[in-house]
Amino acid sequence: MAQAGDYRILHEADLRDYLAGIPDLKALLGGEPAAWSITEVGDGNLNLVFIVKGARGGVAVKQALPYVRLVGESWPLPLSRAHYEYLALSKQAQLAPGLVPALLHHNETLALTVMELLEPHIIMRRGLVAAAHYPRFVDDITTFMARTLFFTSDLALTAAEKKEAIAAFAGNHALCKITEDLIFTDPYRIAEQNRWTAPYLDGLAAALRDDMELHVAISRLKLKFMASPEALLHGDLHTGSIMVTVSETRVIDPEFAFYGPMGFDVGAVLANLLMAYFASAGHESVPGERRAFEAWVLETVEQVWGGFTGKFLDLWRSQASGDAYPASLFAGERGAMRLEAERQAYMQRLFTDTVGFAAAKTIRRIFGLAHNIDFELIEDPKRRAVSEARAVRLARGLMVEAAAFRTIADVTGAARKLRDWMPELSG
Amino acid sequence: MAQAGDYRILHEADLRDYLAGIPDLKALLGGEPAAWSITEVGDGNLNLVFIVKGARGGVAVKQALPYVRLVGESWPLPLSRAHYEYLALSKQAQLAPGLVPALLHHNETLALTVMELLEPHIIMRRGLVAAAHYPRFVDDITTFMARTLFFTSDLALTAAEKKEAIAAFAGNHALCKITEDLIFTDPYRIAEQNRWTAPYLDGLAAALRDDMELHVAISRLKLKFMASPEALLHGDLHTGSIMVTVSETRVIDPEFAFYGPMGFDVGAVLANLLMAYFASAGHESVPGERRAFEAWVLETVEQVWGGFTGKFLDLWRSQASGDAYPASLFAGERGAMRLEAERQAYMQRLFTDTVGFAAAKTIRRIFGLAHNIDFELIEDPKRRAVSEARAVRLARGLMVEAAAFRTIADVTGAARKLRDWMPELSG
Repeated sequence: MAQAGDYRILHEADLRDYLAGIPDLKALLGGEPAAWSITEVGDGNLNLVFIVKGARGGVAVKQALPYVRLVGESWPLPLSRAHYEYLALSKQAQLAPGLVPALLHHNETLALTVMELLEPHIIMRRGLVAAAHYPRFVDDITTFMARTLFFTSDLALTAAEKKEAIAAFAGNHALCKITEDLIFTDPYRIAEQNRWTAPYLDGLAAALRDDMELHVAISRLKLKFMASPEALLHGDLHTGSIMVTVSETRVIDPEFAFYGPMGFDVGAVLANLLMAYFASAGHESVPGERRAFEAWVLETVEQVWGGFTGKFLDLWRSQASGDAYPASLFAGERGAMRLEAERQAYMQRLFTDTVGFAAAKTIRRIFGLAHNIDFELIEDPKRRAVSEARAVRLARGLMVEAAAFRTIADVTGAARKLRDWMPELSG
Repeated sequence: MAQAGDYRILHEADLRDYLAGIPDLKALLGGEPAAWSITEVGDGNLNLVFIVKGARGGVAVKQALPYVRLVGESWPLPLSRAHYEYLALSKQAQLAPGLVPALLHHNETLALTVMELLEPHIIMRRGLVAAAHYPRFVDDITTFMARTLFFTSDLALTAAEKKEAIAAFAGNHALCKITEDLIFTDPYRIAEQNRWTAPYLDGLAAALRDDMELHVAISRLKLKFMASPEALLHGDLHTGSIMVTVSETRVIDPEFAFYGPMGFDVGAVLANLLMAYFASAGHESVPGERRAFEAWVLETVEQVWGGFTGKFLDLWRSQASGDAYPASLFAGERGAMRLEAERQAYMQRLFTDTVGFAAAKTIRRIFGLAHNIDFELIEDPKRRAVSEARAVRLARGLMVEAAAFRTIADVTGAARKLRDWMPELSG
């Protein structure tokens, strides 16, 4: 029987032997194991990631480390997250086939998963920095979100199934805690790990720490994150967790998966698009050269919400099999009409949540521990600060006045107005 | 090792032998086991309950049956509920000492629990039918609710502790399902187990089945019941689950315990007081003879909400140790003031939930499977129907316009206005 103590970090040679010992993987890679190329490419914060290529094919191997890689051994993190990632990936593959990498092998003891190698996909965030358009993205990400969220919600599951599913992910609380601290708490207080584009955003950072309306809003969102298990979330659905080509989209890395509020996933996608939009001006070498890209991004924001809503509602209308909103209470034409109105009201409440979570995901990338290359690759810190301050201004409004944004066009309209707004910077 | 198959129903002789085999219980009862009196008193729907008295003392013994007693073997129900009841009772004893019966022995295999015998306590509902006043009730029940709900919420627990606690009760879903069906669904549709005071309430029953605003409202409450694990609920906190004397209050029977919305417990208490109020006119032999009792009941309704709120807020102010609303975000005088305003807003949201759940608990007692003696003991069915129709009129308003009731005085005021309202009856 495998024991927890059997965990060991697989370095290149160990990994080669390990993979060679699994007939299916050996055959898939092809040729002599000694000739396989093995490259560590983990640019993430938590894990080792290897790309292994043989004479015939390639695989990606992900192994969890017992600590936060970004910080070091002083910040331990349970290996069990690999198990939850595997559970989530299996569920997503079932619900959204073709939109996640194929799962080839999992070893719980080693906290190791072998997946399809995605080639020539790149991390979407890199493409957005380069002003690339992704014509499949809207359809794919809305399908992914609508199906994974709907089919794990009370609209599709019985209450008993739902409770068991919540319990199955309850143990992933160490990963939730990272989110609770780094997204919902630290950016709003003095915390060692916070950083921002100093000195230009010093004043804004201080203002956020002093903004009690914002603190109430982020605390309500935090409580919702902790105590509203509406559906199985990806839990970290930013553009760095999405791999794309012009014709394909794959969602990766669901190790933060747990049962939480749907708006957290949807808001993550919208926030990261909006950050790409605000960062875009900072990447111009000629003023206005990225306007077409920027227009595409805002259009994409609108279509993501619209597409998600449309697909989620279609599933609700055609495949509701859960214990919520029982069909027997909405019989007949009047019942059908009233239920349809309630579906719209449900989506409106979800929109309000989504807007709030999008704001939270934005602010953490500018004042918290984990930043993103959308902003970070703007070399001139002053230009970067300008882009960041615009994003923060939108985010502050979204969070504190979430209910004032009734439609996604209200959000993109507000973003558009801030495109050329010049903030007052410190320093 | 005990197996599930080792379960057997303990009849009187078996129970005597079983208790005699446990030295502590044998000593507590005292005298010769053969001389112990054993009486089955279970008037509930689900279990066997024995009162056992010996030469020295007495105990109450509760054993779960593998089916719903009220309906018979055709409706199976898992014995595991005895385990969840034991878990909940242990937690309540820790959080609200002296307000639940002392736990003397538990046998998970037999689904059997031995508790302190409560004497001369009676079921509070019986006392209310007899127009008794209970001067300790407000202080005790508000302490029980404030402490059990606060200390199992995100205000007192870390997110990790909370998730583990939710998971520990997730398996009690069969009991939750009873509530989901009998409270949140069946009374609003044609269901075999529904009954009401026919023919007088036939029209009202049909109106409820046709009332789509009400169906939306009850469905939202059902979703909240299923997917808002705010705190460890008793889950069945009506006046039949409370035993009283003029100087003592004990909450019993938490077998429906699970993590759910706090308003469900608070609403249960308020609803059952309000039903006692509306039933009161039906128990008069001389018009007006129970006016003092009725005034006490409405005063009690106000004091239960007020007392609960006050105690819950005091705990929040003095003993918040959970991950919600982190103190570091509300430092200084401005932070303290803003947090205090948010506490009030939190209680206002909880009040709205409470009012809705109180309405749901009322309607199920008049149109669903399980009725209560407050109304049932009104012998004249027409008088009973009048009392019931008044309660339903209030409940319909509370559920559909929950947000219009801003204070508990709005609720008692509305109840008072309906005291002599004459409904149109069918038949």
